[in-house]
Amino acid sequence: MTPPLRIAVAGLGTVGAAVVDILVSKSELLSERFGRDVTLTAVSARDKSRDRGVELSSVAWFDDAAEMARMANADVIVELIGGEDGIAKAVCENALSAGRHVVTANKALLALHGTDLANAAEQAGVALGYEASVAGGVPVIKAVREGFGGNQITSIHGILNGTCNYILTTMRLTGRAFHDVLAEAQELGYAEADPTFDIDGIDAAHKLALLASVAFGCEVDFDAVHVEGIRHISAEDIAFAEELGFRIKLLGIANRTSDGVEQRVYPCMVPMDAPLAHVEGVFNAVVVEGDAVGISVLQGRGAGAGPTASAVVSDIADIARGSIVPVFSVPVSQLSKSRTVSIESRRGPYYFRLMVLDRPGVIAEVSAVLKDEQVSVESLLQRGRSEEGSVPVVLTLHETEEANVQRALDRISALDTVVEPPCMIRIEHL
Amino acid sequence: MTPPLRIAVAGLGTVGAAVVDILVSKSELLSERFGRDVTLTAVSARDKSRDRGVELSSVAWFDDAAEMARMANADVIVELIGGEDGIAKAVCENALSAGRHVVTANKALLALHGTDLANAAEQAGVALGYEASVAGGVPVIKAVREGFGGNQITSIHGILNGTCNYILTTMRLTGRAFHDVLAEAQELGYAEADPTFDIDGIDAAHKLALLASVAFGCEVDFDAVHVEGIRHISAEDIAFAEELGFRIKLLGIANRTSDGVEQRVYPCMVPMDAPLAHVEGVFNAVVVEGDAVGISVLQGRGAGAGPTASAVVSDIADIARGSIVPVFSVPVSQLSKSRTVSIESRRGPYYFRLMVLDRPGVIAEVSAVLKDEQVSVESLLQRGRSEEGSVPVVLTLHETEEANVQRALDRISALDTVVEPPCMIRIEHL
Repeated sequence: MTPPLRIAVAGLGTVGAAVVDILVSKSELLSERFGRDVTLTAVSARDKSRDRGVELSSVAWFDDAAEMARMANADVIVELIGGEDGIAKAVCENALSAGRHVVTANKALLALHGTDLANAAEQAGVALGYEASVAGGVPVIKAVREGFGGNQITSIHGILNGTCNYILTTMRLTGRAFHDVLAEAQELGYAEADPTFDIDGIDAAHKLALLASVAFGCEVDFDAVHVEGIRHISAEDIAFAEELGFRIKLLGIANRTSDGVEQRVYPCMVPMDAPLAHVEGVFNAVVVEGDAVGISVLQGRGAGAGPTASAVVSDIADIARGSIVPVFSVPVSQLSKSRTVSIESRRGPYYFRLMVLDRPGVIAEVSAVLKDEQVSVESLLQRGRSEEGSVPVVLTLHETEEANVQRALDRISALDTVVEPPCMIRIEHL
Repeated sequence: MTPPLRIAVAGLGTVGAAVVDILVSKSELLSERFGRDVTLTAVSARDKSRDRGVELSSVAWFDDAAEMARMANADVIVELIGGEDGIAKAVCENALSAGRHVVTANKALLALHGTDLANAAEQAGVALGYEASVAGGVPVIKAVREGFGGNQITSIHGILNGTCNYILTTMRLTGRAFHDVLAEAQELGYAEADPTFDIDGIDAAHKLALLASVAFGCEVDFDAVHVEGIRHISAEDIAFAEELGFRIKLLGIANRTSDGVEQRVYPCMVPMDAPLAHVEGVFNAVVVEGDAVGISVLQGRGAGAGPTASAVVSDIADIARGSIVPVFSVPVSQLSKSRTVSIESRRGPYYFRLMVLDRPGVIAEVSAVLKDEQVSVESLLQRGRSEEGSVPVVLTLHETEEANVQRALDRISALDTVVEPPCMIRIEHL
């Protein structure tokens, strides 16, 4: 039998503790499955005295995770500290330069330094596992890199942030306002005290950059991702979406086109019969389109200790079995530098909600602008009278180029009869 | 660079031709991804002269696939002939005993001889890849065996037969009868001329036996699968299901319980908010429940040349990379002999549709039987009057043991006022 695979874990939060628990409590099963023993040899965390519900007395303790990455008696360093720089980066760099495999759940780090770290791993001939960084326990990286390895992937898109999906689902089910639901999500632990990364789409963008890279074999390019969050989505928009036969979802969308790679994160309306329309609450789902396989959907819990630990252990399993795949599907030297397709050239349908003064002639003014910008209206909904003097006008537009839409929106905003900045939501027939 | 991996393909139907096409037309991409060249060296099929749209002049031709499996200049034999015995079995056995890897899409063969073939592969130290045998191009075997490798899997269930799902979906959307829709599916090529394997649940049962084995680490035991098909499902039942908030799906369900392993294929009602309720048409989906990862859903086209070839190539990729995993998750010697839990001990809710004479006292008779068999009614729906004299009575039952339900059904069938055999459909809150 192959000698045991020695594991050191940096970061013992809920995920780290769950990883340790699986390695220890299932050691016999894992050894049967992986063909060798997997042994926890070292850990590092901030507070040695804290009770994490796992027995660590026989394991080396390091106060300094970066030192552990260099010095521990370990073949694999599991980085679960988080953060796009600082100690997490040092841990990964030290481990790779010492010729140790790295497994991480850190999407921010990889979105910003993925190509460099992949290069370091390749030079050292070791693995850089990051299954846990996207869609929790759903093996989407493995599916793309191995399961769909015979395909040219043309699109990869999905619901990549459970916090946003929970908020949007709850807003729909309760009719409550964004800030109200966000506050509740924070109380329940579904959203961070500082929710910026989640609700402004940054976390989803980190994940999308990794998915685009592994699906298309291009360098990781987080700066090329167009990012919009969900702060501006109102309960009213969600209700109008429902009426029009759509659900609003924050999607990450990466397409390979003849002009280059599109990478976009924004809230959009998806038709009720799309697979993603029914992915609700904290669930994540990723849709992969390959030239041979067609459309495939992978769905599951996008976060949490158990799912994340499950993904970390699957990366450890691959290392235990000696299955090392190029980090982003092809060797780093073969990764293409993706040409970015800007959001201005998006073509698709759109939804507008305008709050307008309740007086004659407003629709005529708006229509004139739209006509002038060659934007063609598919449906128009004007509803009721208002005491306060403003009423919503909801428009859906036929397929149009985003640049025209933006010009039209600017001009509509400037109309005296339009009393709030218009709300624009893209419609995606995915 | 590692020497090329040499591939021989037995069977050049649509799937075989699609595999050959991927290997030839994407050779450069595959070589980048797999770290070595993959070369088609031999093929075997019935008719050498047929044009399959692929260039085969530089490839050795064998009239006898079983001979090719022994003699070809190949590392991997791809078996795409099909059938649970005969030539397909000889091809796989010959290849394994000659120390060659086997990749197959043949669920029937593996469901009946899986443990023996796995043993032969293990003795020879080669791979037996069967990703293509379940859920088309969706990498569900890889997900279970590798992606969820840190989990104890407690349940695996799903829509495993696209033909049945297409028929049930079309019946729901059009209100048409089973035989009518089946005939259309045959015309469209979604159902075979002899549809028995599909519509009687046998194909789904083959797949379920493989999923249970790989998920629970037990020997493949096709005979232990309780199988019912969809012939008895009427348009009326589908409409009643809709009214009660359910969809009818043919599911394969495997659960690991403290009493043993449950393996069942039957049409059942799933609530509208279940992930499987929205998997429609020819799509397949598999739900995996693991103790760490929770619930994960994998969905895609369950058949067709492209998806099946995609899965075949993913198995070839693993072999090219030297990633060989125990066929059913653990070495054959460690596979448990599963104790089978019989269908009689199923506990769950049920739906009955009875066609009864439209006269007073019928409900009282039926209710008396149910009370006597300790079966508790959740809802009862009696609708309209009939010219012909019989009307449907629809009942849903609270959670009950199947043995009681069967006794009640036998007694209800025998009532003079019940004019047709009752239709019973299990309700699954998955």
